[in-house]
Amino acid sequence: MAKEKNVEQITDMEVDFAQWFTDVCTKAELVDYSGVKGLFILRPYGYAIWENIQNYLDRRFKELGHENVSMPMLIPESLLQREKDHVEGFAPECAWVTMGGSEELPERLCVRPTSETLFCDHWSHVVHSWRDLPMKYNQWCSVLRWEKTTRPFLRGREFLWQEGHTLHATAEEAIEETEQMLQVYADCYEQLLAMPVVEGVKTEKEKFAGAERTYCVECMMHDHKGLQAATSHYFGDGFTRAFNIAFSDKNNQLTYPHQTSWGFTTRSIGGIIMTHGDNNGLVLPPNIAPIQVIVLPIAAHKPGVTEKAQELVSRLKAAGIRVKGDFSDNSPGWKFANWEMKGVPLRIEIGPKDMENNQCVAVRRDNREKTYVFLDELEARIPALLETVQQGLYDKAKANLDSHTFPAFSLEEARELQEKNGGFIKTMWCGSLECEMKMKEQAGMTSRCIPFEQEHLGDTCPICGRAAKKMIYWGVAY
Amino acid sequence: MAKEKNVEQITDMEVDFAQWFTDVCTKAELVDYSGVKGLFILRPYGYAIWENIQNYLDRRFKELGHENVSMPMLIPESLLQREKDHVEGFAPECAWVTMGGSEELPERLCVRPTSETLFCDHWSHVVHSWRDLPMKYNQWCSVLRWEKTTRPFLRGREFLWQEGHTLHATAEEAIEETEQMLQVYADCYEQLLAMPVVEGVKTEKEKFAGAERTYCVECMMHDHKGLQAATSHYFGDGFTRAFNIAFSDKNNQLTYPHQTSWGFTTRSIGGIIMTHGDNNGLVLPPNIAPIQVIVLPIAAHKPGVTEKAQELVSRLKAAGIRVKGDFSDNSPGWKFANWEMKGVPLRIEIGPKDMENNQCVAVRRDNREKTYVFLDELEARIPALLETVQQGLYDKAKANLDSHTFPAFSLEEARELQEKNGGFIKTMWCGSLECEMKMKEQAGMTSRCIPFEQEHLGDTCPICGRAAKKMIYWGVAY
Repeated sequence: MAKEKNVEQITDMEVDFAQWFTDVCTKAELVDYSGVKGLFILRPYGYAIWENIQNYLDRRFKELGHENVSMPMLIPESLLQREKDHVEGFAPECAWVTMGGSEELPERLCVRPTSETLFCDHWSHVVHSWRDLPMKYNQWCSVLRWEKTTRPFLRGREFLWQEGHTLHATAEEAIEETEQMLQVYADCYEQLLAMPVVEGVKTEKEKFAGAERTYCVECMMHDHKGLQAATSHYFGDGFTRAFNIAFSDKNNQLTYPHQTSWGFTTRSIGGIIMTHGDNNGLVLPPNIAPIQVIVLPIAAHKPGVTEKAQELVSRLKAAGIRVKGDFSDNSPGWKFANWEMKGVPLRIEIGPKDMENNQCVAVRRDNREKTYVFLDELEARIPALLETVQQGLYDKAKANLDSHTFPAFSLEEARELQEKNGGFIKTMWCGSLECEMKMKEQAGMTSRCIPFEQEHLGDTCPICGRAAKKMIYWGVAY
Repeated sequence: MAKEKNVEQITDMEVDFAQWFTDVCTKAELVDYSGVKGLFILRPYGYAIWENIQNYLDRRFKELGHENVSMPMLIPESLLQREKDHVEGFAPECAWVTMGGSEELPERLCVRPTSETLFCDHWSHVVHSWRDLPMKYNQWCSVLRWEKTTRPFLRGREFLWQEGHTLHATAEEAIEETEQMLQVYADCYEQLLAMPVVEGVKTEKEKFAGAERTYCVECMMHDHKGLQAATSHYFGDGFTRAFNIAFSDKNNQLTYPHQTSWGFTTRSIGGIIMTHGDNNGLVLPPNIAPIQVIVLPIAAHKPGVTEKAQELVSRLKAAGIRVKGDFSDNSPGWKFANWEMKGVPLRIEIGPKDMENNQCVAVRRDNREKTYVFLDELEARIPALLETVQQGLYDKAKANLDSHTFPAFSLEEARELQEKNGGFIKTMWCGSLECEMKMKEQAGMTSRCIPFEQEHLGDTCPICGRAAKKMIYWGVAY
């Protein structure tokens, strides 16, 4: 048996982006495949990234007054059918429990694909008066959607997420909530994951089944495809009427409350990979990395090296950094490759020569830049270096987004730009489904969003020539 | 519409213990019923208790080197069948997914009742060498077991839990892990939930399906029934052989690793209710209470009262206490009843007269004892009072356990003691299934555990008269 496991080569992203992505997922030990297609195992390193996202979002949610709950995982078919648009959207991809023990169930139960119907059923029991509002709930769980094609993180039949569900006395308050939670998602992407976002509204065609309005954050990947990164929905009172959730307002009038929901999934980890990764593997932004710094002793058999490396680990840990030392007997070459594959933002090397000079070497994962750090300055310099890496990753991703967002003034130009460069194509739009379908059929692009930040590119829709209502982003998306 | 919601009366526990329990679950707003029998909604207040348990256990697990992962929620039938004892134990209570979208699945999938088979399948992919061991994994999730009779917390078709799964190079190491995790559970019950435990080993009959040995902590409830509070299992290499998880040991020999699993569920919240609750509702130990102190302004319309109450809230929050002020316009009487129902350990009242005397009144939930606290001493006295409450609850529960644990020297005496007093009956035991069945049939008691702390009550088994091997605890359990 070999002393070291191989850190195997991965496919270059320029050769086969999809294969590169899958290679990173498995070789960085983020996921494993299970015996059921589309159901993935999140291994410790992958799950630790999700835990860091959870910690950030959970804190933000609670600061804004949301409370966590746990809803059942099964939905009776009759309950799912209560709101017509919703069931039409989700029924085709439901997984159905039909047997309990050896008995056939009287009514089949769907494993939740999302939980609007469960929250509404519960609220119909407990909401009576304006005093009971708002209800601001969240749950962390997994959901099932029986997709045909599946890929780790990007499209699973099961995925982990949080789903926020809230109920408000007025439409204004509900819309404010919807927009506020979108902003929390945008902050999470930009501040934690170093992924710049485009914020906007989905078209009627692309909105969530049953929603009045769907807000989204969209990101751009390395290969210039788009990723719908998170969504936030305003439902009006459609569900609350269907579920008969009426409350007495302050004037003692029976009123239907207004509802929102919003979700953030493990798909975000796929986004991290495709935004920052390279041909040596994963590249993690320091703010999300389970291990921010890996300390490697060089010539560890020389007197004092291991002890010194251990001292650095202790000092960095005490300084609040997520740090690990690799004291295994694997070769330095193997260690370099392994921790590069795992995307650890900063590698610290320390050997006898460094010790003589009272310094260590810090190597950035993202660009392999070396910095000599005096040991006396360790606690000041390393956090600063991590910040530099975080900002550097964001800037690089932002440059990719900006340099691959193109205005177009005809359908033909849009098609050509997409074919040649990929990316987001921005055009004016009349707002019709017809033109949206035409863009899909003739240029292969779906609408990504109607961005909040509007530009006036002209007066007419370049697809039909009628008066334009808004500027819209188009793209090819995961 | 009434200005206040009623804090409704609950059934006295002496009248109907089961109804009292259900009343507390719903009136303290811990749970709601869903549209599917046995699937319960954990409302914010109930879930917050679970989050506090999670925080404690997750920290302990990680300190001991465990890593969190996420396994799929569905198990192919063929995978579940791989270990014979295991499938026999669980198949009768599995819920089966048979349809995905509109198509019948080629193989039906069981919603996980527990995940040994999934962990083993994964390990068979990734464990190759002694360098890969130990594997110390945990996951937080919910599982389904299609039980016939169901009750909130105590027996749900779905319940929340953590399941730890570990793999070790040797039997000794695995057994040490099994015992260590049992100790973590015992600590959680005793230190956090103020519930004294009996630690021991399950009999062959009562052990987990597929395990070689099952350890458990058993608690005693108010009504002197037992509660199996948590379990920890040692599997030997039964599963690893069945799943062909072989590794090369340091001598380059192919060897099967030894396995453990251990679980702690939301059933523990049922235990808190039935250990500490009273006829006014829930009583929460301060260490687990989502709200440790509720501050109520008395005569809140008088100048300065509300402001002073708010100041106390701020000061206690700053002192690290989970505190809330009730500034609603409900009457003081309603507020007293409401926060008693919710089991908040300490109520602080402050009114104009208290302000004149530079004091407030602290009232314990558990015994309604009043203490006048000088405001200058607030940050010192309140934490000390909370500690007193925590200890008081533990002592009371311990007295209940001790005073309802009886030695018996014949089957008849055991039956009579159980009938008259309930509680745990301890006897010597020969170790045979036959005597265990006899105790069940003739005295209505199951074996609870063979406690670690053995006493020598005699030389023979009082059921059959043969030589005794161990002292065992019997009881009627939830």
